[in-house]
Amino acid sequence: MRIVIDGMGGDHAPTEIVKGVTWAAKEIDDELIIVGDEEKIKEELSKYSYNPEQIKIKHASEVITGEDSPVKAIRRKTDSSMVVGISMVKNGEGDIFVSAGNTGALMAGGIFILGKIEGIDRPALASVYPILGGIPSLLVDAGANADCKPKNLVEFATMGSLYMEKVIGRPNPRVGLVNLGTEEGKGNALMKESFGMIKEANVNFIGNVEARELPAGVCDVIVCDGFTGNIVLKLTEGMAWRILKVIKKKFTESAVSKLAAAMLAGKIKELREDFDYSEYGGAPVLGVKGAIVKMHGSSSANSVKNTIIKAKPYFSENVISTIESEMALIHSKES
Amino acid sequence: MRIVIDGMGGDHAPTEIVKGVTWAAKEIDDELIIVGDEEKIKEELSKYSYNPEQIKIKHASEVITGEDSPVKAIRRKTDSSMVVGISMVKNGEGDIFVSAGNTGALMAGGIFILGKIEGIDRPALASVYPILGGIPSLLVDAGANADCKPKNLVEFATMGSLYMEKVIGRPNPRVGLVNLGTEEGKGNALMKESFGMIKEANVNFIGNVEARELPAGVCDVIVCDGFTGNIVLKLTEGMAWRILKVIKKKFTESAVSKLAAAMLAGKIKELREDFDYSEYGGAPVLGVKGAIVKMHGSSSANSVKNTIIKAKPYFSENVISTIESEMALIHSKES
Repeated sequence: MRIVIDGMGGDHAPTEIVKGVTWAAKEIDDELIIVGDEEKIKEELSKYSYNPEQIKIKHASEVITGEDSPVKAIRRKTDSSMVVGISMVKNGEGDIFVSAGNTGALMAGGIFILGKIEGIDRPALASVYPILGGIPSLLVDAGANADCKPKNLVEFATMGSLYMEKVIGRPNPRVGLVNLGTEEGKGNALMKESFGMIKEANVNFIGNVEARELPAGVCDVIVCDGFTGNIVLKLTEGMAWRILKVIKKKFTESAVSKLAAAMLAGKIKELREDFDYSEYGGAPVLGVKGAIVKMHGSSSANSVKNTIIKAKPYFSENVISTIESEMALIHSKES
Repeated sequence: MRIVIDGMGGDHAPTEIVKGVTWAAKEIDDELIIVGDEEKIKEELSKYSYNPEQIKIKHASEVITGEDSPVKAIRRKTDSSMVVGISMVKNGEGDIFVSAGNTGALMAGGIFILGKIEGIDRPALASVYPILGGIPSLLVDAGANADCKPKNLVEFATMGSLYMEKVIGRPNPRVGLVNLGTEEGKGNALMKESFGMIKEANVNFIGNVEARELPAGVCDVIVCDGFTGNIVLKLTEGMAWRILKVIKKKFTESAVSKLAAAMLAGKIKELREDFDYSEYGGAPVLGVKGAIVKMHGSSSANSVKNTIIKAKPYFSENVISTIESEMALIHSKES
């Protein structure tokens, strides 16, 4: 397999990206092609011993930044590491593209350069949803589509379920629809209409799930519009940080609690680790004709390494052709 | 002031309701009228010493349950404690109505019996949003209106701001709009359009707030549609319970951590207390022509007492006529 990595995207590029690629190379045999400023990447690579047959460089003179307008950037910065990298997947020079760069541009690049899968109206970004003291769920859509129609939520449910099964490896994943209450007929207009349509889809639909149950891992695939998905992800993070911050403050208020807190330091560290995305792999762009995976913008080398390794089944398990078949099946039922 | 209390609503009615009323009577001089089954309420009251000039009973033969369909129940159960209680506010026999009963029915009762305030399209339910280690925010709408138009969010912002200032007593409250990002122009169609309209309203609008910042108390009044509001409230609770549960489990894994946890028990209890709604007072129905306050369905006597006492400024501070004036001002600008 040939994995293409955006050498210039994210807060710590190219340093942490290149380091992470060399770490990944120690664990997998696949070809790793870093796209970006050749001089800079060479300089970073020179710090490590590596096999030049395995780690290669593809030069690209431009960089899409976090401030760039996604659609404009993809259209105008044609020699950017992102456009060049996605084009390599399009042309068959690479099998997967991994980037820590501008999320909107990555979505736009996937749609404009690779194209949407037949039958998919709205490609989505899926994100790991961390479960404290448990195994993470997958949330679709994580914010790419702020306004959705019911058919989009059916697409998210189908793609999320396939990705969870084939890439993350959880068989027969439970798919839940984020809603106000568990009974059918509850919710806003979008969720009410989506419910019946997801019930007809080829997924293990467990029905509506209340937000209160999400942190306990009530389902494997969390389905909602991108606005709600962003709220769910960000609020979960915000609550985790707030609680850990307040605990730390409270525990250092007196000598006795300081002592107790020191005794518990290891346990508190374990809690933090459940929220450490760097262990989980990246967030796939789903619904485009090629495997694209987003890494967190502030990815460390460890996160880069894990994203590269964990992205492999997105290509090797033929996820894209399976999504195509599923969508064809849904549309044949409709007509 | 005459405060009317639904003696039959909620999980622990009439026992905890009546007990809470007798506790409130020890702290305030106002007349307290309990509505419901006279025999049952008398029996409960007989357990306490109280002044029959202060605590009175108004008989009502029916009860609206949690399973009742809100609109049907209000229309058909005309001698229910809820319909009788709200009608007392309508007829001037009472100034505030407090109930732990069916939330949907309470909203419907407010709208059908009292009527909407001139210029208000959608009355809302406002809820306390607990801030761990800080003072709570107020969230409007907490779930009464799953689908909203931009003008509804302007109403929520205006009413929430007035309630926070006049009833909870926080001057010049910061109003924030729940959104994907802080910049103007971000978000779904509803939030994009609402932003500009709230900016024109007579509130201290601090702009968009990200869900990540809510648990830290980034604003005093959190404005969003009822679907989003429900997600925010329930997820915040769900995360709090999950984290406290996992902490408890982790802290009891070994003898050393058990000892440390015992030393910290008081601190952990303090964390739980920040999420104890019974201290905060109830959730007001805003936008109807009368003061209605919802208590939690499982309210204890302490919660009943606090809700009664803290609801008083909703009437005494003329909140309803102030909302009327504000709405008239907004609509005069429009035309």
